[in-house]
Order: sequence, then structure tokens, then C-alpha cells
Amino acid sequence: MKSNPNFSGVIAPVVTPWGTDGAPDLDRFVEHCEWLLEDGCTGLAPFGTTSEGNSLGLDERMEMLEDLVDSGVDPKRLMPGTGACSVSDAIVLTEHAVDLGCGGVLMLPPFYYKNPSEEGLFRFFAEVIEDVSDDDLKIYLYHIPPIAQVGFPLSLVQRLVKEFPETVVGLKDSSGDWSNTKAILDAVPNFEVFPGSEVFLLDGLRNGAAGCISATANVSARSIRKVFDNWQGPDADQLQAETTALRKAIQGWPMIPVLKALIAHYRQDPGWAKARPPFTALSEEDAAKAISTLADAHGFKLEFAEAA
Amino acid sequence: MKSNPNFSGVIAPVVTPWGTDGAPDLDRFVEHCEWLLEDGCTGLAPFGTTSEGNSLGLDERMEMLEDLVDSGVDPKRLMPGTGACSVSDAIVLTEHAVDLGCGGVLMLPPFYYKNPSEEGLFRFFAEVIEDVSDDDLKIYLYHIPPIAQVGFPLSLVQRLVKEFPETVVGLKDSSGDWSNTKAILDAVPNFEVFPGSEVFLLDGLRNGAAGCISATANVSARSIRKVFDNWQGPDADQLQAETTALRKAIQGWPMIPVLKALIAHYRQDPGWAKARPPFTALSEEDAAKAISTLADAHGFKLEFAEAA
Repeated sequence: MKSNPNFSGVIAPVVTPWGTDGAPDLDRFVEHCEWLLEDGCTGLAPFGTTSEGNSLGLDERMEMLEDLVDSGVDPKRLMPGTGACSVSDAIVLTEHAVDLGCGGVLMLPPFYYKNPSEEGLFRFFAEVIEDVSDDDLKIYLYHIPPIAQVGFPLSLVQRLVKEFPETVVGLKDSSGDWSNTKAILDAVPNFEVFPGSEVFLLDGLRNGAAGCISATANVSARSIRKVFDNWQGPDADQLQAETTALRKAIQGWPMIPVLKALIAHYRQDPGWAKARPPFTALSEEDAAKAISTLADAHGFKLEFAEAA
Repeated sequence: MKSNPNFSGVIAPVVTPWGTDGAPDLDRFVEHCEWLLEDGCTGLAPFGTTSEGNSLGLDERMEMLEDLVDSGVDPKRLMPGTGACSVSDAIVLTEHAVDLGCGGVLMLPPFYYKNPSEEGLFRFFAEVIEDVSDDDLKIYLYHIPPIAQVGFPLSLVQRLVKEFPETVVGLKDSSGDWSNTKAILDAVPNFEVFPGSEVFLLDGLRNGAAGCISATANVSARSIRKVFDNWQGPDADQLQAETTALRKAIQGWPMIPVLKALIAHYRQDPGWAKARPPFTALSEEDAAKAISTLADAHGFKLEFAEAA
């Protein structure tokens, strides 16, 4: 692992709760963020894919982030998603996050136009970096080709790191392809690489990764954190096997809806299950099945000190 | 064709000029829009795919539209792109367009999350329609699976039309698949269907389409318009063959950069060639080759009364 990394450990792309009016529910959001930090997360990545981040408007994202920082969460532990299809929107969001003191930002490439040239993608990030023009800006590239379709080829990562070594400091690899994660770890020294799933956490740590940023950390940070805390210990492989099994069980349902169904159930707060279009909540039947399956097979439950 | 359609004919997804500061160039934009209406366009669709629409920020789009309406262009001839990944952004843009009196809006589906359920997409549009809640709102669904990846299956089109017959009035089909266009024309009566390329214009008109919305209308509206004006005449097939040949020749280069290179050349205004990342301008060599090839093989040139 990089010595003295900016971020490391277990980071959750925080799921977004919605109020009855369809707007983000700020109270539930802050409460969930605080709970995640108690449950084992070392950092939070609001407005990621699992956060329905691209279903949020610009103003909504900025208000949520301000509320979170106002609530007392250390902004150095926050890595909000600030990528956008439009370089001007990406600049607005990135500047806002830096002004709030966020430890980093997680940036998607512009993802509407497919097969952009490497030069065009390089210029996009160069424009953001030059426009924000702040030494405190720390960018984590968000590589998620299964969804964004547009990704970061290794040569682009290397060019960005070479040109902006103090700013482009890491990458989240949600390709699901360990060989890609390994290639980046091998080729880019002193770079904070986070696999996008805890399934690759132990392999990642053994090869220099900084931790993982994973959807399921919204409900299983405690289990993932055990791997991170003990990765050089004798139980590492056993702990990894347990967290991998839990991840694979959760993946049996659509990820965002099932995470929300689990939180809604264990918080006894049905409103948590709501999703914004184009997502829909899990059916009651599927939610009940997910809850009982995970409890029976993995002893899974969530504990909230102050559940409603 | 639908009797008394809201839009018909030749509609250009207006290319966006950029100033030296990287912001949209409002003067060049309005000038190009006015010229397009003189050159044969019956309507304009700013902020489409060819407009680098998704490379524009929300505020930028709204300012451009206000400037265009202020310049005296009849808003009833405008069908701005107001789709977005976020339903809240889509509502802001759609409401703004309706308030300005736009004849319609061209809406992409939310395109970040792939393989959304039909129910989720239906709810997205239902939320926009119910939130804007204005009889003047006329939505054209923007089906462009090669780029957006997320499209409108026929069953979703039918459900939206059935639920909102006064609002969901048409569709732009940029699938490039004539059998899909034909299926919609056959299955949805009184619907304003626009193929996304003039290649399908005559076939479209003969099967009830309302016209076409085409990237190349930025430089060849005059040629496309001849097909529309004469589609029931004896020369229709010959006119279609000519405009198809021109389209296919232009397609030999990347679409957005070549359109801008042509406008820059014939306006003697090199700044027009600029693109916003992730796009880059054509190289000077490619631009020169495109210009000479099109001039030699198709007698192609653009005429500007008041060229700089």
C-alpha cells in the first residue's frame, strides 16, 4: 500500500434515501452516513453509482453534501462523486466539494458519448483540474465500464498521473476484472487503487491496493473491515471467504433495491425502501425473501442503536 | 402523416459553437439557428446529441434557449433536448422550455443506469409530466440506443401514449433501424415520428412519418427539404437518392467535428471548428480533405449572406 495514503480502508458509496415528496431525505441521509462510520467504514463516497448519484440533480447533490459536513462528519473522510457528462457541471460539483474540504472526489468520465478519444478524455479532466486550480483537489478516477460504458484505459490513467501527479491520486476499479486492477497496481506506483467490490479486497491489499469502495459496504462494512484490519494476519483468507460469501448472497437481488430493503427492515422504517426512477423498490415478497435468506444463511442482521 | 402535426419537416439538432473561453458562444449560436431556418429547416432541436447537448451544463442550456427566443426565433419551432439522467434535472429543463413557449421538447430516457425496467422508465416520464403539469408540454421521445444504450421499447411508447395522449406526441428514432421506425408508425396512430436520419425520410413520409430530425441538417437542410416538399411528386426518389448520397459522404468523418469544420470553412470563421471535451476538432488535414471531397463529389458548399 502507498505510505500515508489520502484514503484507505472500507468506503461506502452511500445509498440515498428519498422523502415522500421524492426529494432526497436529508435527515435519513446524514443518519445513515453517521451509522456507516460507526459500522466500520473508514470513508464515504456519496453520489456514486449505488447512491443513485446520477439520479440526483446538481443542486440536490450540493445541498446533501453541505448538510453532511454541517452535521459534523469530517470532510476529509468524504469522496463525493463529482463526475458529469458536461465539463461545466463537473467543474461546479468538484469546486463545491473542494470548497467544503472534502478529502477527494470520485470522478466518472463523461459517459453520454461512447468511444471518445483518449485525447478528448484527457482534455476533459485537464479542463476540470485547470479550472478548479486548487492544491487540495484530489481526484479518484471512477472506472466502471459495465455501466458508464466509457472507461479509463491504462494509458490514459498513466498520462493523467504523469501530467497531474499531485491531483490524480487514485482510482476505483469497478470493472469486475481483477486482471485490470492488477495491471494498474503494477503499472502505476504510489497510486491509491480501490477495487469496486470487497471480493477483491484481500488480493488487492496483497498487491498494494488501498482498500475497497463497495456497494455492499452500506450493510456489511463490519465484515469487510475485518479483512482490512487483519489482512496480514493468519485469519485473513477465512475472513475474506466470509465477506465474499455474504457479498455473493446479497448480489442475488438487484443491488440498490436490496440494500434499501435491508436498511428499511432493520431500521423498521419502510420509507427507506423507496428508489427514484428509473429504479423501483423491491417487491415486498422479494424483500422478505432477501431478508430471511441472508439471515438464515449468513446470520445477517443490521444493528441500530437508535432504531425507530 | 398526422393531420395538423405539432412539428413536421426538417429539423436540425443545432451544433453548439464554443467561445475562446470554452463557454457556449451565444452570438454564433443564434446566428447559426437563424441561418438554418433560412436554409430550409422547419424547426430546430438544440441540445440534441449532435449539439453536444449532454456536454452542456443545465445553466448553459437555459441561457442559450433564452437568448434564442429573445432573438426573435418563434419558440413554437423549437424542440430543445430536456432529457437528463436525473428526473429533477429533467423537470427543471422541461419546465423552463415550456415557460419559454417551446413547441415541444425532445427527451432522452435517463441513460446512466443500464437495463432499467420498463416500469422504472414509465415512472420517470410520469414524474416529469405530473410535476411540470402543463397542457402546453409536448414530449418527443428520443430513441437513440446506439449512444444512450437505454431506449424506448414499443410497449413503453404505447403505454406512455395511452396514459398521456395529449403530452407524449411523438418520437425521434435514431436507432438507424428502419424496421423499428416502421413498427412504431404502424402501431401508434396519430404519432409524430421522425427518423433520425434523412436516409429514411422518403420511406418515412410514405409510411406516415412527420419528417426527420437529422445531424446533417446543420449543413444540408436545403437538400433534405427538397425531399420533404416533393415527396409525392415524380422526382421524389431522385431527390432522396441525392440527399442520401450527400449524407453518406458526410458520414465518412466523425459527425460533430466534420459539421463544425464545414461551417468554420464556409463562414471563414476558424473558431467554429472548436468542440468541447470529450470531442476534439478535426485535424486541419482531415478538415481540408472533407471539404474538398464533398465539394468535388457533391458540389457541396454553404452560402452565407453575411459571412464574416
